Amino acid sequence: MSSTTYILAINCGSSSIKAKLYAVNDAGKRKPLHAVAEGSIKGIAAKGQKIKIKLEWLDGSGHDISEEGELGDQVDYQTLPPLLLKKFTSSSKGLKDEQIKYIAHRIVHGGPHKEPIIITREHEEGLTEMDTLSEFAPLHNHSAVLAIRSCLKALPEHTSLLAFDTLFHQTLPEEVYTYAIPKPDQEVPIPLRKVSKLHSLGIAQKLNLTPTRQYGFHGLSYRSILQSIATKSGKQTKDVSIVVAHLGSGGSCCMIRNGESQDTTMGLTPLEGLVGGTRSGSIDPTLVFHLVEGCAEDAGLDGIKVTRAEATLNKKSGLTALAGTNDFNSITTKMLDPSSYDAKDAKASTLAYKVYTDRLLCYLTFYLGKLFETDGVDGIDGLVFSGGIGEKSVFLRKDISKRLGWMGFQVDDKLNEQASAGKEVTIKISGEASKIPVWVVQTDEEEVCAKMVQEYFDL
Amino acid sequence: MSSTTYILAINCGSSSIKAKLYAVNDAGKRKPLHAVAEGSIKGIAAKGQKIKIKLEWLDGSGHDISEEGELGDQVDYQTLPPLLLKKFTSSSKGLKDEQIKYIAHRIVHGGPHKEPIIITREHEEGLTEMDTLSEFAPLHNHSAVLAIRSCLKALPEHTSLLAFDTLFHQTLPEEVYTYAIPKPDQEVPIPLRKVSKLHSLGIAQKLNLTPTRQYGFHGLSYRSILQSIATKSGKQTKDVSIVVAHLGSGGSCCMIRNGESQDTTMGLTPLEGLVGGTRSGSIDPTLVFHLVEGCAEDAGLDGIKVTRAEATLNKKSGLTALAGTNDFNSITTKMLDPSSYDAKDAKASTLAYKVYTDRLLCYLTFYLGKLFETDGVDGIDGLVFSGGIGEKSVFLRKDISKRLGWMGFQVDDKLNEQASAGKEVTIKISGEASKIPVWVVQTDEEEVCAKMVQEYFDL
Repeated sequence: MSSTTYILAINCGSSSIKAKLYAVNDAGKRKPLHAVAEGSIKGIAAKGQKIKIKLEWLDGSGHDISEEGELGDQVDYQTLPPLLLKKFTSSSKGLKDEQIKYIAHRIVHGGPHKEPIIITREHEEGLTEMDTLSEFAPLHNHSAVLAIRSCLKALPEHTSLLAFDTLFHQTLPEEVYTYAIPKPDQEVPIPLRKVSKLHSLGIAQKLNLTPTRQYGFHGLSYRSILQSIATKSGKQTKDVSIVVAHLGSGGSCCMIRNGESQDTTMGLTPLEGLVGGTRSGSIDPTLVFHLVEGCAEDAGLDGIKVTRAEATLNKKSGLTALAGTNDFNSITTKMLDPSSYDAKDAKASTLAYKVYTDRLLCYLTFYLGKLFETDGVDGIDGLVFSGGIGEKSVFLRKDISKRLGWMGFQVDDKLNEQASAGKEVTIKISGEASKIPVWVVQTDEEEVCAKMVQEYFDL
Repeated sequence: MSSTTYILAINCGSSSIKAKLYAVNDAGKRKPLHAVAEGSIKGIAAKGQKIKIKLEWLDGSGHDISEEGELGDQVDYQTLPPLLLKKFTSSSKGLKDEQIKYIAHRIVHGGPHKEPIIITREHEEGLTEMDTLSEFAPLHNHSAVLAIRSCLKALPEHTSLLAFDTLFHQTLPEEVYTYAIPKPDQEVPIPLRKVSKLHSLGIAQKLNLTPTRQYGFHGLSYRSILQSIATKSGKQTKDVSIVVAHLGSGGSCCMIRNGESQDTTMGLTPLEGLVGGTRSGSIDPTLVFHLVEGCAEDAGLDGIKVTRAEATLNKKSGLTALAGTNDFNSITTKMLDPSSYDAKDAKASTLAYKVYTDRLLCYLTFYLGKLFETDGVDGIDGLVFSGGIGEKSVFLRKDISKRLGWMGFQVDDKLNEQASAGKEVTIKISGEASKIPVWVVQTDEEEVCAKMVQEYFDL
């Protein structure tokens, strides 16, 4: 193990951190990466509960860890990535700090960047820009930047690669990503309300982010899913056309034609499109002026400048606003067995499910329709469910496929049940009679991040 | 003509006023209304151009008028409805003021009202509420209220009926109209930012408008179209299921199942959904905070309180922002014959058309899909194009039907061309091979308004 180079992929959310360690095969370049261990910290920001730290060595080359740490709401976020790093090296049977030569960080908003960014201790400039972009991804970018900075301190010699979720959507057609709004005043750099901040940091020119267009997110997930379907179908990714529903605490859909993103539901920020766990999804764009008092004032969130409106729509809306919880399993359970629960609660859960699936069906129907028109039914490699909800909810998958039944979908109940057991990465749940296959795919954003490092540095 | 009762239907926009005069048949109750004359004032607010006043007597019972008035940008809006009224009575061969016993006004936003409102000189209370609702329909309600007040002065004895565009959408399912957002603070009445105003007027209780739901608009048009398709098909409206694209300077789609609105694209305000002539349609709900400086500040519009963001998204966006014009014919002309125009202009027009139709196809596909699932292809009475763009653009109708071709649509080129000649109210433009009929319907909101008066007062 001594001379092997390792890549650590870190995926930071505001409430959890996931990390996966990959060994680069010495035998030759671009060999398949070998996943060695995976770790996580959960329950960050949870009130009165201790964070949970887990580590699992997939090949037995270390000792597994499952322990609790400080209280979630008292923990300092910046201490967590180094804590997790330390667990990897201390519980291994021989891994040394300096062998982790690369860390790939998932970053939600990459702004105008068309390539990953490389960060080292000597070259941290990009991080300021990433932090400014937090304003366009309030639930994500800032946590990731904290993590990168703390990793650079803990492992000064490593090289970081920032893998952006937005990269995958560079192929969106202009008519899809363009909003029908005026260009901002030419004399004032974008984003307008942050002019002074950007100017003072001297990066106004660099942060070439226009708010008149959609960027799209979940790109690392879509790339992972695309690869899985290609592998399972024995095709090259460039020959795969699918419609994907990535349904997690944030959800989005993507239409992938011949391996390229052609439409997606999230917009300038991850708020647009589907209903999320705490996000409103698409609503009347002027609604907030009638809902949130002082909507344009600073919400006072820790570390980032976000308006009260943005905070409400990102953190207090979605399933949580409708059902009082963002636990999708609890929502469907109450809906399917209402007599066992408080009547009002069961009714709210039912409404939440119906609102959620109505919006989801809108985009799925549209995207499938576009593929039908250009490629015909035989040109579609499938409808894919992924993300926490997509991978786990047997009921949602069956229900959605049934409501799309007129297009020729038919799910096999037994296969659908088995899929949620989660033994395989890519499972077909449609029956023989289904004109288009239906898949459940376990997405692996960390692997995509690690592969980006491998490609970028030609390892 | 002396003893006949007349109903005048007035349809007020910010740049035009349309009016139609109907005679109530004396021979018995609920006989078909008889359209006697129609008039209009156009070019209101147009810079440096005189307003155009027209009046046409459909049965020769008066003298037609076609003249110009004051400069559009110098005219006082409140003087215009009485001016038009006067043209009706002065150019008639015998109509007296007092015979116009009823005026039906089209009102875009009816808030929570489930029935039309009746207004007389003695009972004007509802008008204050209607004006407050202007904040939720910035391009419309206020003009209508000005018109109603001026008509009450000009014809003190008449009774006004307010016909709301929102009435038709009362049948929307809860999961369709509900936004996944939190309820506004219970202690503060809605709309929050207007608390003091509502309180001071004592109508906070009355204006029971919740911003957490969609209302939907263009309802008078949808009712008119539904009736036309029913008549043409020899069916009762309750047996008609159609998907309608009402495409005017504001555009929306509606899914009507068994005579009832089941989904529509406009939301809390008419801004949501499709791209309009000057409206953005749906965009990322937090985008305005990055586009418009001081977005929550008052825009200083005449007579209504609207934020700068709402003004930008309602008045400076849409086709105008993309192509520099909201003239759809000019846009398609430049797109189809780019070499005859400035290259940049032609390119912008092409993009505007593509953005416009991409959003339109999204909703049409979804709505048709929902009908397919519940009623099958034979249960759908048609796809209907209406409104200025829908009735006139041969190219758009053909293009959209082609892009929905996978569903079984097939438009007959000759019938499609003929439809834009506008001789008939309801024209089928699909060929024999089309699995679902495609229609062009000339909508008649004024007739629907007049019929509401007839029904309400049992005339």
